[in-house]
Amino acid sequence: MCQHASPPTPAAEHHCACQQQAGPHPGKRVPAAPELILPEVPFPSLRVIEALGEHGLRQLVAQHHALLRQSAIGHLFAQDAAQFAQLVERVADFVVEACGGAAQYTPAHGHTCMRTRHFPFTIDEAAREVWLTLLWQALADCAAPAAVREEYWAWMEPFSLRMINRRTTKAQPARWGYAEMAARHA
Amino acid sequence: MCQHASPPTPAAEHHCACQQQAGPHPGKRVPAAPELILPEVPFPSLRVIEALGEHGLRQLVAQHHALLRQSAIGHLFAQDAAQFAQLVERVADFVVEACGGAAQYTPAHGHTCMRTRHFPFTIDEAAREVWLTLLWQALADCAAPAAVREEYWAWMEPFSLRMINRRTTKAQPARWGYAEMAARHA
Repeated sequence: MCQHASPPTPAAEHHCACQQQAGPHPGKRVPAAPELILPEVPFPSLRVIEALGEHGLRQLVAQHHALLRQSAIGHLFAQDAAQFAQLVERVADFVVEACGGAAQYTPAHGHTCMRTRHFPFTIDEAAREVWLTLLWQALADCAAPAAVREEYWAWMEPFSLRMINRRTTKAQPARWGYAEMAARHA
Repeated sequence: MCQHASPPTPAAEHHCACQQQAGPHPGKRVPAAPELILPEVPFPSLRVIEALGEHGLRQLVAQHHALLRQSAIGHLFAQDAAQFAQLVERVADFVVEACGGAAQYTPAHGHTCMRTRHFPFTIDEAAREVWLTLLWQALADCAAPAAVREEYWAWMEPFSLRMINRRTTKAQPARWGYAEMAARHA
């Protein structure tokens, strides 16, 4: 988006949904408010790795990232093929460990702090939407029962909120429950 | 910052201050948390415009923006001199109206929603710090009593938090109370 101050929109076109009274008043106190609300994140149970195995999980991560690389947010990822492959392996290490598999991520890369690790990359609400849309696609392609895909989605969908570091709207980011996604993509 | 995934930092160098237990565990629930906390914003009383007058307020805004234009965040503002002058006038209109002066902003530009109006410009914690540092300087240069400068600062310091739309750290942004700033700049 243009970095220069643009002429103001006419009053009739101002579509801001904020609740403030029209016009500022001396002495008014605008109440405290949370900006981005980060809901609870339920990590998956052992059922996921029991259904997919480490190999299936790594394939899921690889497939998701193959889609991401060609997507509107492909520029956020390493362009060099070897570096990209390294990234995918690191992500897979994290996912496998998170799902109760071999602890390969923490010993090699340190205590996980995904939000911090994502700060160098500008991630807004739209980027999250792309990421989730492609995750849904990758999940659909993997040979896991619906219950397992639901559990994985229930983990990643709220988890992905925590990677947003560039806000472009006052509204809370959209939420997409598994049932809603399944109905939409049926 | 580099948009490409960089090699991971060795475990010993990971300085993230997050509270999570080392290593992810199946079935764990990461609790909900607010991301950026926006505290209450106290708009100024009539004392500010009584002390400075509309002219003094406009001068304060102009001086602040003259400093901003030459600062590390100068690129966020219109580069064209005429457009910049227009912006400064709009900001001054808002400040005058907010302080109880003539209602010039709302009729011309519509209901104020500062956060929304700032979304096109990438504003992180460091940008806010520059903006506030220069506001402090502009306030010091204006012929207002300390109590009035304190009131103006107490308004703008928390208000400026609401313009941050690019986060670069998990920590809440720094807060700078008037007394603390006065002591530091004494």
